Amino acid sequence: MSLDQLKNYRQEIHNHLTTQLLPFWENRCVDKDNGGFITHFDNAGNDSGADEKSLIAQTRTVYTFSSAHRAGYGDGRYAAIASHGVDFLIDKMWDNENGGFYWLMDRKGNVKIDEKIVYGHSFAIYSLAEYTLATGDPRGLEYAEKVFDLLQKYGADTYYGGYFEMFHKNWELKGKGPAGGDRKTLDAHMHLMEAFTTLYEASQKQVHKRKLLEIIQLLINKIMHPQYKTGIPQFWADWTVAPQIKFDIIWGWDRFTEDGLKSSAEDNTSYGHNVEFAWLLMHALDIAGVPYDAYHDQLLASYNHAVENGIDWEYGGVYVEGSHAGEVYDREKEFWQQAEVIIGMLDAYRVYGDEKYLKAYDATHRFVFDHMIHSEVGEWLPLLTRQGEPIWKHMSHSWKVNYHSVRSMVQGIVRLDKLIATA
Amino acid sequence: MSLDQLKNYRQEIHNHLTTQLLPFWENRCVDKDNGGFITHFDNAGNDSGADEKSLIAQTRTVYTFSSAHRAGYGDGRYAAIASHGVDFLIDKMWDNENGGFYWLMDRKGNVKIDEKIVYGHSFAIYSLAEYTLATGDPRGLEYAEKVFDLLQKYGADTYYGGYFEMFHKNWELKGKGPAGGDRKTLDAHMHLMEAFTTLYEASQKQVHKRKLLEIIQLLINKIMHPQYKTGIPQFWADWTVAPQIKFDIIWGWDRFTEDGLKSSAEDNTSYGHNVEFAWLLMHALDIAGVPYDAYHDQLLASYNHAVENGIDWEYGGVYVEGSHAGEVYDREKEFWQQAEVIIGMLDAYRVYGDEKYLKAYDATHRFVFDHMIHSEVGEWLPLLTRQGEPIWKHMSHSWKVNYHSVRSMVQGIVRLDKLIATA
Repeated sequence: MSLDQLKNYRQEIHNHLTTQLLPFWENRCVDKDNGGFITHFDNAGNDSGADEKSLIAQTRTVYTFSSAHRAGYGDGRYAAIASHGVDFLIDKMWDNENGGFYWLMDRKGNVKIDEKIVYGHSFAIYSLAEYTLATGDPRGLEYAEKVFDLLQKYGADTYYGGYFEMFHKNWELKGKGPAGGDRKTLDAHMHLMEAFTTLYEASQKQVHKRKLLEIIQLLINKIMHPQYKTGIPQFWADWTVAPQIKFDIIWGWDRFTEDGLKSSAEDNTSYGHNVEFAWLLMHALDIAGVPYDAYHDQLLASYNHAVENGIDWEYGGVYVEGSHAGEVYDREKEFWQQAEVIIGMLDAYRVYGDEKYLKAYDATHRFVFDHMIHSEVGEWLPLLTRQGEPIWKHMSHSWKVNYHSVRSMVQGIVRLDKLIATA
Repeated sequence: MSLDQLKNYRQEIHNHLTTQLLPFWENRCVDKDNGGFITHFDNAGNDSGADEKSLIAQTRTVYTFSSAHRAGYGDGRYAAIASHGVDFLIDKMWDNENGGFYWLMDRKGNVKIDEKIVYGHSFAIYSLAEYTLATGDPRGLEYAEKVFDLLQKYGADTYYGGYFEMFHKNWELKGKGPAGGDRKTLDAHMHLMEAFTTLYEASQKQVHKRKLLEIIQLLINKIMHPQYKTGIPQFWADWTVAPQIKFDIIWGWDRFTEDGLKSSAEDNTSYGHNVEFAWLLMHALDIAGVPYDAYHDQLLASYNHAVENGIDWEYGGVYVEGSHAGEVYDREKEFWQQAEVIIGMLDAYRVYGDEKYLKAYDATHRFVFDHMIHSEVGEWLPLLTRQGEPIWKHMSHSWKVNYHSVRSMVQGIVRLDKLIATA
């Protein structure tokens, strides 16, 4: 790969980030009337009017502006926007009686779903710790630590390890099946790893590092497929594989059959999620000061499974999901997998030096810039056909927002700068 | 067994409890000058002057007077003594900066060892929850819950399950080997089961019941010997058996070789501890509302191992310890094993109806009343030869105090009354 090519990628990303993506959010998400953020926009970038503020969308937007500020963008304006979001989280979404954040509010700040969902709380920790790292405002770390403490008290399973994930308002564990109280997921545990990484980065406390290292061992030894080292989506409490079902509380638009099962409920893995896991693991090890030595098998398996099976070498981009052995089940192109593969392939190339990772990066980068980015408006389309035709066309809703797209561009530049510096 | 014999046991116990044991403590343990309790007495029952107040002795004495009051003794005087002890725990032993109780103070309330030891905190939960159940004073449950929360945050191992046990003042995990930070013990986990039982009894909170049921599974499936179902004293973090070593922080006078190892470091179990575990497990299941059905194999193994190997049918009483297969290593008679076998054999007889348990009870009861009780003074001798000659002669020190002796008599009466009512 030539230095010029790396610089071209960087230029293309920097241009998109600073003239389209960050301005898209800066210009429309701040809710001056009610506090917090408006996070539902149609294809034209207009407020679609959905009367909800989700824990995911509010925390992710705090993360986005905090991380953009920490990376040097916005001349201080982004720190102010992040602080505006933290006000809403603490003043409106925090449950003063039971602790923890409500799952869903209306725009005005009235509670719509009062349950306590671990997935959402992982983003609370992540965004609030990032906010303190970015701004120095101690409120972020204070509330991130409160959430960590609640997860240790109510979430942790002190027999089988890991965390239960679905709780009522008062942190009593929910019931079985779609209520989710009897299951554990890759998704929540991976994002807890991500959250504990940034929490430890901000706090430097031993207990945060210890629980980070524990969850890394869980992910590698219980959650990854024993043969393929690919992510298995759902488990019973004892870490035996559970068929992948749709929960009552959702945070994405995964497609299920009419009876709420995945069509391949027990042999299903996400290429993009596996790559996201690998680069988040590298980052966690970096922050914890742990060398990669014991983790190369896992890291290479995660990256290679995606490169060998998930990358669309004909049309570009990465497919949605397939079997652990590799066969592709769903060839559509969803926004967040592209975003994570962009970061992950740059990390894989930086550490392992194999050109195949840069080729996979190029295929994904080009698909995003040639098909997924809705340039006239500034954000990414959520779902395209294999060939790149839009299927879903909105610019944002509660589960999409800005975390994947902005992080991909901010972290892509960080990684391209490292490659350019050593090229 | 005749009704008369049961009534004779009860009369003998009631007389000892109300005219010797409780008066022994009521008349000498309250430290009016410095708060808290004096807990070091020589063979004549005189203050031996040791300048220490241990977390174990202070909490156990709070438990003793609380439980005696709850069982109907003392006409309110014992509630007042318990409250006096709680004052010292909260005002002097609680670490306001880091949370948790210091391990050792001098009499005046200055810190001598500031480390945070899980074993001691199990007794803090147990005694403080019992105190609120006995008196209604909410301070007990408030601090018991604070300790529970700290254990969940700092103690729990979210990968292998269970709890780490030895911490610095700020709850950072201590180092390896004798520092104990790399080990897990039967002792701490059994007493956490005991503590979480009474905590749940007082709080009726789902999370306390959940973690109680989790630790029961740990004890049965990880800590008990896979073949004999007898207790294994020490483990590595991953629940493989660790050779039994002496820790820097101790809470008993176990005998070790000069290099700090038990002479049978990897094949050693305590008959009395196994019986204590079994009756505490029955009590935990009762409080949690869980039937014994799934637990009979474990309960019978615990009781029968002691009856078949640990009871001294010639001289009476229960031996100190031996191998998991049964062979006795140490035939001396220590106070606390006798106390726990008295309670446990009455429970075993009540549930399983086999006369052998009453015979084991009789052998132990007689040994205690004929040899161990120092009647002129009121407490039990700590250690006797197999035949019943005193080896250690003090009436109390930091690790002996009153928890085993008083509980054995209070709970013995409760169980004898049940047997008498149905005889």
